[in-house]
Amino acid sequence: MKKMINQAENIVSEMLLGMLKAYPNMLQQVADLPIIVRKQKKQQKVGLVSGGGSGHEPAHAGFVGYGMLDAAVAGEVFTSPSADKVYEAIKAVDSGKGVLLVIKNYSGDVMNFEMAAEMAAMEGITVSKIIVDDDIAVENSTYTVGRRGIAGTVWVHKMVGAAAESGYSLEALEQFGNKVIANTKSIGMALKPCLVPTTGKLSFELADDEVEIGLGIHGEPGTHREKIQSADQHVDHLLEKLLAESNLSAEDEVAVLVNGLGETTLIELFIINNRVADVLQSKNIRVVDTLVGNYMTSLDMGGFSITLSKLDSEMKQMLQAKADTVAFKRG
Amino acid sequence: MKKMINQAENIVSEMLLGMLKAYPNMLQQVADLPIIVRKQKKQQKVGLVSGGGSGHEPAHAGFVGYGMLDAAVAGEVFTSPSADKVYEAIKAVDSGKGVLLVIKNYSGDVMNFEMAAEMAAMEGITVSKIIVDDDIAVENSTYTVGRRGIAGTVWVHKMVGAAAESGYSLEALEQFGNKVIANTKSIGMALKPCLVPTTGKLSFELADDEVEIGLGIHGEPGTHREKIQSADQHVDHLLEKLLAESNLSAEDEVAVLVNGLGETTLIELFIINNRVADVLQSKNIRVVDTLVGNYMTSLDMGGFSITLSKLDSEMKQMLQAKADTVAFKRG
Repeated sequence: MKKMINQAENIVSEMLLGMLKAYPNMLQQVADLPIIVRKQKKQQKVGLVSGGGSGHEPAHAGFVGYGMLDAAVAGEVFTSPSADKVYEAIKAVDSGKGVLLVIKNYSGDVMNFEMAAEMAAMEGITVSKIIVDDDIAVENSTYTVGRRGIAGTVWVHKMVGAAAESGYSLEALEQFGNKVIANTKSIGMALKPCLVPTTGKLSFELADDEVEIGLGIHGEPGTHREKIQSADQHVDHLLEKLLAESNLSAEDEVAVLVNGLGETTLIELFIINNRVADVLQSKNIRVVDTLVGNYMTSLDMGGFSITLSKLDSEMKQMLQAKADTVAFKRG
Repeated sequence: MKKMINQAENIVSEMLLGMLKAYPNMLQQVADLPIIVRKQKKQQKVGLVSGGGSGHEPAHAGFVGYGMLDAAVAGEVFTSPSADKVYEAIKAVDSGKGVLLVIKNYSGDVMNFEMAAEMAAMEGITVSKIIVDDDIAVENSTYTVGRRGIAGTVWVHKMVGAAAESGYSLEALEQFGNKVIANTKSIGMALKPCLVPTTGKLSFELADDEVEIGLGIHGEPGTHREKIQSADQHVDHLLEKLLAESNLSAEDEVAVLVNGLGETTLIELFIINNRVADVLQSKNIRVVDTLVGNYMTSLDMGGFSITLSKLDSEMKQMLQAKADTVAFKRG
């Protein structure tokens, strides 16, 4: 298998060590666990914990830092972290104001994060959760009841992280988080499978002239396969579905994330954004913030997703607030 | 060809438009040319211009902004921009203090940037140049007389950009730039070719169990091919070559860049950095700054490079200074 790894069983632990050695002033590890927390822990704020299977880098450890997450828990590749590890992360970031869990909607993650919340509650830590389900492609999938959480999670980390930093209570933060989630919708498509380094196998197969619409970030099936078309044609098609779900009208303000799944070049992502911006402008929808790049990947999968967050003034303020993490800096 | 593009001849222009629409507050275009400049042009400083063929994104337009470049000129994919376009970039950023060109050492780039400098001189603009030749793998190659310029160019942009921002004269900046270049060495290896979207062809072929050591960022041949080994074994081998050229001793301070060529996952890059950090620590070489990610890519090529910059106090100060660009933010 052509991957720069050592033993397959050490992939996640060596990755985390390599990250900690790269950013020692920003990040630290909890004991020897796959938990990355801020080096400078801020007291007297709600702690924000996210995580999930590895393979989506820079998510989630890349978003640990000022104005975003307090901790990220890394499972094995495409595998939910266990409840006891999430519990350790909760304990590590609690400073008496409670902890909010940001969970991507996959059955394993939801189960383990909820179990961890129960364990923490028994220790007297107040824990709430929000569940990100931004992917409009399919209603249920291989690993999920309900819609999946994908790249929109990055906007959730950003906005909810800023609100936590600014002093929101746990209750207010949960409420705000659910508003952000309700207004954040994504859809993606895949051009190429990813190679899963722990198994040495491709995540699925696609013909040379074929793409899969609505595919999930672990290779879960989407809605259908079709022949590859031009970037503009695919973007138009995806945006049509997205706008039908996004409740956006003329003069509304929106944040856009054009997210690469790994192998897709920035050239392509910018060409995609060129069309996204034009279509939104033609509808007089005002783009006030755009990110283009690899924020929620699927190893080396080829493909991308488009996320739209309909903004109100509170969301806009939190979006534009300062953030200082490895993979997202602002202000 | 499985790429998200429209017409092949519009790849670069649509990419640049998509980038400008994503970051309208930071970047603007010069006329309808493939030249990206800062939105807020700073007066009374030496202008810093870089560029080259497209396909290396986020280089170079992603490094246009405060504390780094004033302009980036984009050629077609893997093709030098023409002299008249570089000349327009020089004119756009000159504010009377002269302009420094940062050129990666490829024959086409050197020729076109030098011709542009002569054109600007005839208009009364003082232009100097520095030529980045950090790649220690081969002495001459397909497109180059002398060593090639690769990912070390990012550290040059950062340090020289900070010096320009802090008010260095053109002469002092050229001298500082040459010091940075003399102390910045890189070497890379490839696991997979890239698909060149303008031709629809792979840049080279490699067997399933084979890697190429020292390959260039346009697919130029390296030193040799060998069987794939573990990440640690390859890193040890590359670092041995790099340290032999880097003049680094115990207690010296160094900046590290582990750069992905496109398709290689952050998981792998962090595993690579884990070994790089350990080897340097074993030699008591002090890593004071590390970047891990895709900074100088080769479309969707699989592979990576390691760059070491031996720092003195002036370089360290410039490395740690504020930067605010699309792809590099600090401070």
